[in-house]
Amino acid sequence: MSTNRAVAYRGPGVVEVIDTAYPEFELKDGPGVHPANVGRQVRHGAILRTVATNICGSDQHMVRGRTTAPQGLVLGHEITGEVVEVGPDVEFIRVGDIVSVPFNIACGRCRNCKEGKTGICLNVNPDRPGGAYGYVDMGGWVGGQAEYVLVPYADRNLLRFPDADQAMEKILDLAMLSDIFPTGFHGVVTAAVGPGSTVYIAGAGPVGLAAAVGAQLLGAAAVILGELNEARLAQARSFGCETIDVTQGDPKDQIEQILGVPEVDAGVDAVGFEARGHGSEASHEAPATVLNSLMDITAAGGALGIPGLYVTGNPGGVDEAAKVGSLSLRLGLGWAKSLSFTTGQCPVMKYNRQLMTAILHDEVHIAKAVNATPVSLEEAPQGYAVFDQGAARNYVLNPNGYIKTA
Amino acid sequence: MSTNRAVAYRGPGVVEVIDTAYPEFELKDGPGVHPANVGRQVRHGAILRTVATNICGSDQHMVRGRTTAPQGLVLGHEITGEVVEVGPDVEFIRVGDIVSVPFNIACGRCRNCKEGKTGICLNVNPDRPGGAYGYVDMGGWVGGQAEYVLVPYADRNLLRFPDADQAMEKILDLAMLSDIFPTGFHGVVTAAVGPGSTVYIAGAGPVGLAAAVGAQLLGAAAVILGELNEARLAQARSFGCETIDVTQGDPKDQIEQILGVPEVDAGVDAVGFEARGHGSEASHEAPATVLNSLMDITAAGGALGIPGLYVTGNPGGVDEAAKVGSLSLRLGLGWAKSLSFTTGQCPVMKYNRQLMTAILHDEVHIAKAVNATPVSLEEAPQGYAVFDQGAARNYVLNPNGYIKTA
Amino acid sequence: MSTNRAVAYRGPGVVEVIDTAYPEFELKDGPGVHPANVGRQVRHGAILRTVATNICGSDQHMVRGRTTAPQGLVLGHEITGEVVEVGPDVEFIRVGDIVSVPFNIACGRCRNCKEGKTGICLNVNPDRPGGAYGYVDMGGWVGGQAEYVLVPYADRNLLRFPDADQAMEKILDLAMLSDIFPTGFHGVVTAAVGPGSTVYIAGAGPVGLAAAVGAQLLGAAAVILGELNEARLAQARSFGCETIDVTQGDPKDQIEQILGVPEVDAGVDAVGFEARGHGSEASHEAPATVLNSLMDITAAGGALGIPGLYVTGNPGGVDEAAKVGSLSLRLGLGWAKSLSFTTGQCPVMKYNRQLMTAILHDEVHIAKAVNATPVSLEEAPQGYAVFDQGAARNYVLNPNGYIKTA
Amino acid sequence: MSTNRAVAYRGPGVVEVIDTAYPEFELKDGPGVHPANVGRQVRHGAILRTVATNICGSDQHMVRGRTTAPQGLVLGHEITGEVVEVGPDVEFIRVGDIVSVPFNIACGRCRNCKEGKTGICLNVNPDRPGGAYGYVDMGGWVGGQAEYVLVPYADRNLLRFPDADQAMEKILDLAMLSDIFPTGFHGVVTAAVGPGSTVYIAGAGPVGLAAAVGAQLLGAAAVILGELNEARLAQARSFGCETIDVTQGDPKDQIEQILGVPEVDAGVDAVGFEARGHGSEASHEAPATVLNSLMDITAAGGALGIPGLYVTGNPGGVDEAAKVGSLSLRLGLGWAKSLSFTTGQCPVMKYNRQLMTAILHDEVHIAKAVNATPVSLEEAPQGYAVFDQGAARNYVLNPNGYIKTA
Repeated sequence: MSTNRAVAYRGPGVVEVIDTAYPEFELKDGPGVHPANVGRQVRHGAILRTVATNICGSDQHMVRGRTTAPQGLVLGHEITGEVVEVGPDVEFIRVGDIVSVPFNIACGRCRNCKEGKTGICLNVNPDRPGGAYGYVDMGGWVGGQAEYVLVPYADRNLLRFPDADQAMEKILDLAMLSDIFPTGFHGVVTAAVGPGSTVYIAGAGPVGLAAAVGAQLLGAAAVILGELNEARLAQARSFGCETIDVTQGDPKDQIEQILGVPEVDAGVDAVGFEARGHGSEASHEAPATVLNSLMDITAAGGALGIPGLYVTGNPGGVDEAAKVGSLSLRLGLGWAKSLSFTTGQCPVMKYNRQLMTAILHDEVHIAKAVNATPVSLEEAPQGYAVFDQGAARNYVLNPNGYIKTA
Repeated sequence: MSTNRAVAYRGPGVVEVIDTAYPEFELKDGPGVHPANVGRQVRHGAILRTVATNICGSDQHMVRGRTTAPQGLVLGHEITGEVVEVGPDVEFIRVGDIVSVPFNIACGRCRNCKEGKTGICLNVNPDRPGGAYGYVDMGGWVGGQAEYVLVPYADRNLLRFPDADQAMEKILDLAMLSDIFPTGFHGVVTAAVGPGSTVYIAGAGPVGLAAAVGAQLLGAAAVILGELNEARLAQARSFGCETIDVTQGDPKDQIEQILGVPEVDAGVDAVGFEARGHGSEASHEAPATVLNSLMDITAAGGALGIPGLYVTGNPGGVDEAAKVGSLSLRLGLGWAKSLSFTTGQCPVMKYNRQLMTAILHDEVHIAKAVNATPVSLEEAPQGYAVFDQGAARNYVLNPNGYIKTA
Repeated sequence: MSTNRAVAYRGPGVVEVIDTAYPEFELKDGPGVHPANVGRQVRHGAILRTVATNICGSDQHMVRGRTTAPQGLVLGHEITGEVVEVGPDVEFIRVGDIVSVPFNIACGRCRNCKEGKTGICLNVNPDRPGGAYGYVDMGGWVGGQAEYVLVPYADRNLLRFPDADQAMEKILDLAMLSDIFPTGFHGVVTAAVGPGSTVYIAGAGPVGLAAAVGAQLLGAAAVILGELNEARLAQARSFGCETIDVTQGDPKDQIEQILGVPEVDAGVDAVGFEARGHGSEASHEAPATVLNSLMDITAAGGALGIPGLYVTGNPGGVDEAAKVGSLSLRLGLGWAKSLSFTTGQCPVMKYNRQLMTAILHDEVHIAKAVNATPVSLEEAPQGYAVFDQGAARNYVLNPNGYIKTA
Repeated sequence: MSTNRAVAYRGPGVVEVIDTAYPEFELKDGPGVHPANVGRQVRHGAILRTVATNICGSDQHMVRGRTTAPQGLVLGHEITGEVVEVGPDVEFIRVGDIVSVPFNIACGRCRNCKEGKTGICLNVNPDRPGGAYGYVDMGGWVGGQAEYVLVPYADRNLLRFPDADQAMEKILDLAMLSDIFPTGFHGVVTAAVGPGSTVYIAGAGPVGLAAAVGAQLLGAAAVILGELNEARLAQARSFGCETIDVTQGDPKDQIEQILGVPEVDAGVDAVGFEARGHGSEASHEAPATVLNSLMDITAAGGALGIPGLYVTGNPGGVDEAAKVGSLSLRLGLGWAKSLSFTTGQCPVMKYNRQLMTAILHDEVHIAKAVNATPVSLEEAPQGYAVFDQGAARNYVLNPNGYIKTA
């Protein structure tokens, strides 16, 4: 029980599986741990033996070297696990529980947590509101692409699956509750998608696909995804979405062909700050492309959900503005159309219980939609590489062999 | 063009198809027309040739003699039609449009209409807020179970189907937009149903079935209907609902068997003031049964949607309290559980456009769920009789032969 | 430090100040403590030296013998205090903090707490959702009308005042944050009061007066209180409310005289289950009077906020129905007017921070409005007696002499 | 009755009072009238004799030559009047009514109007959703800075004051209901201001001051306005606001001095596309300054209300991006803080009735707050000039002498 293996960032383009310490109920010093967090007692925490831990598109920003992530950072914020130890202050979570971990770390005790804004908890990150596991500038909490991981504020944060056996039958679906399913769902909720809506989702990576599933769950009449990558578009079509190849140009014309009108009720940005251009511009980064396009194609009075990540520091940005997270946005157009915009991390806890219930009652099949693909922990480096090349897969690491593969 | 046939109430248990006047752009005197509405000019109106007009469960309250409806009243508030004439003040609706008519008549100009509360328009009924076609105490507007009908405030009230040919292909589904689909949907929306919700719907008549479809459209995880009538329960099972036979007793135990817990997140009353008891009490009217049961089985913090009709005057009520619309409700229980309650007519206009879009994109199949069954206008009396005996059917009158039956 | 004095219920009409144990970080056996809660460890708790602790109108239900409260129950759920000890699991609250205690005890870790429904926490009361201090059927947590009191889940529950000296200057106002100010505010919020609203509040006891202050804070145009007790009406007029003496008859006519129309936009029930009749019926209990009157005078489309307490067991009820918490309600009328209803305990945490800020910035003067009157702990029995006779005062017990009286 | 006088735009910096036609129930050709609107019948309209018609800050954008407004355009979209004629389709508005005219022209019959989105009506402007009186690109409806003006869809659009005599006593307050009071209020509502909020409003022109009044009405604890113009700051202080002189630098430090923390709960942009820089940059236009500053000073999880106008075409913009309405926005910062943004014209009808009620009940004094100053129609050119120089006044034209000045 005293060893641990984990996936670590080693520099641009390099991840490795390393030996690392088995967690204790204390946040130890290490790569990316804010000094003010070093030595923090985590009596309210639980130690999980990892059941599933997914590679996220947002991890790729770090692995590509597009952030200030330190070398040695243990990655992984999409965690599902079995509880193997609980701290002395844990009252309701029990050893043996199979649980989903929201990627946002939240104390449950600050103003923001009380208001349900768990993505911007005030007590977990000395640098700014909001914390996460295994992520740059998110407080230094050790990542969960590992055999074992510490989860603070366990009673508050962990979502217990009601029946362990039932959970293991749907584990690939349930593994999506830690991040991408709620994140995609948040995108469509904040875009005001409802029954009968038409929605355009920019980006058909895992979050975009999850947003599409969320839109279908909310009763949307037409769900259209736009992408550069044909394999991902094919994946989107596999569960009933319409698709647009944005290398062929602005999505507006193609939307008109699909819907009969060149606009949608709701727009979702599932791409974020590394967006490329449309049409002939698709080969280079053009970070405002997605948002400006969404303002153009979303009907007046509509809302834009923006789960795609935008950052304050982007050393590899295409220009000086991009490097500090500024974009040239057509706000005049957005204003003339009375659009509204919602940004930020998804507060996972707002959605995960209800989405779990939908999974357990067979109302939704998210794993199939995102093409969840289990691989061993040791295969993680290859998974990162293949995913970065645009594979239409969502890699689920299986560090302890819980997931039985055929 | 100068004749008209219509279904009229002739006294308790009796409806007839009668010859009546072709509509003009004026509200003429007649059974149930409030004196202050007689002679009202309807320059803003349209005359429709009826495409479909459904028999509603709420019509049965009148036909059974449970209301003060006057003899001779032309029935029918669920209307779909083709526009054949428009008044001089109509600007956007055109002759030839195929349209759905919300059952609530709304001026679009009063405070309540401006706030979207079209079920309680202040300008259409001299007696109280809210008007409807062919219904007692609703202003005296002539019913639409007829070949032709006048619709006031046509630009505001009518929902135009975007393509007439496409509309005729799905006409039985679209015919449900005038009342029961939005009404059922309003029930689940006001019960706060969303993705992952468990919901219990009391009553599996057309509104209850429509509520079930609405709950599915909103992503509910489990939709349970309770009823006395086995044929209606079978109809509910036909599209994936769980069912409970309330003649076997209180639904609580059966809910526990289905869900593993004896409560649901959300409760809907699709029965109204003629409710009977549960179990051994199922043979007699016990009007508070449904609401008290819902308070018992809805989880603390839940909401009750109450689309089922409760009335202020009920001459056939089981006791003096019931006759004036009073019920003995377990408010102490409801309060202890922090429940909330939403009553009243569905404001159809709030939902009909989005539900139409869901129908046209094949996201929902409401006609099949409620077992919509077209019959000729002349067959209306038989339809009323069979429906009153508990047939699991929703009769759609087809006065002008638009609906092609096999 | 090892002694404690507290106010205890001794039987119908009798309260006494008794010697009792100084709190420990464990819930000990005692009057009203559910067996399943006995011995519960409270490592997450804080012990407060009481700064202010108010006598609540809802305490009177117990003291009058209208509930099943056991003899010896230590009363008091409106608590403000100074932290003198914290349990080992407390991370953010510090000794010396001056804090307000929401009357609802909430774990912060269950589904309902995560959704902000802190009035129906699932983990603090083995009998039902929702717990409170010193109250019958609320889990057995010891009341705070005492020198010292234990508060569980201190990090989650306690609202820290930002500056202790500033807090002591406004302590009578801040003392209202534990219950009546949020409770009254919840009443007007759930009645949908906003800028320009006209609102009728039934009951001008502390909660009714607090609701009136809340309505003013929300920008209401006209705030009308109805009461049987002239002293309380005079208190309401002292801060700009209109008043109606309901011993003179139904409030409807008097509302018409005040507003020019016989209805209001919003209705609040700040009376609860011991309501008396109006006019000639004012001398006897008639528990449905208030709700039926509110349905009559609230405009169609309006909402009723119901902070007044209704209970499931009422041994002294006027009839068999009342004894089990059933009321004969005019639901037919409410339905015809499309009214909605919100019941239940106020989730204090939803409002207390923002109301504290309003107090600290001098935007609102709640203590003056409710006529907060500090008395010593030993004077509590007299305070109960005078308050029960209808004094227009809100008694604030001052067990440790923090509150300096002139 | 057959003559009319009106204020017309004559070119950059020039307005004149001209003779023009008395309105008819038809939209005639003229400057800025879209060809598709020429000859449009307005049977649903009313002709008003103007009681009050205000010069708006947004008119100044046109008068400064910053838009493509055509010469000869009759200005004025803030209109209060007496009805002197009604078209044949008007049913509820009567000759003699004193009414407020929402600046947005809305048909009440399209999807957006039905949803309450009256700022983006689909039927009044052939160019784009949304119409207004006397404004470039808003459909060509003739402005109301005139003796007489035509108002289309009168039953829907006009807000009737309940009592004409009472209205004339508060006419300067009521005159603010056509635009700036609802517009400012919309800014604070969409910024999620409520009781206890701290709010920063950029800009202390009439809309900023109205936003401040709105924030106070909603119970805000601290209302801070930032401006370049000392007279306007003094005006803000006159009714209890805190103020910040942004020529002294970024408002963040000054906010910290006022509140003790360098951030606010809510931010409002009441400046728009002609914003200047802060501190040493205050002498030149820097259009992204306000929005970027608001993202910096609004707390994580907050909302930005953006009533300030941003446009799609801005021929005098500081650079190529500004000329097409693009701004370099720090979206990375906004995203990291989970901010949301609401843009667009205020849908006046959503708020004007309730704000009228607040005025009539003396709950709010908007005219004094914005320093409403009546002048004759002939003085309009001077009013424009003085206002453009930064006078802390809101000029109310008094074309027909209704407003009695001392």
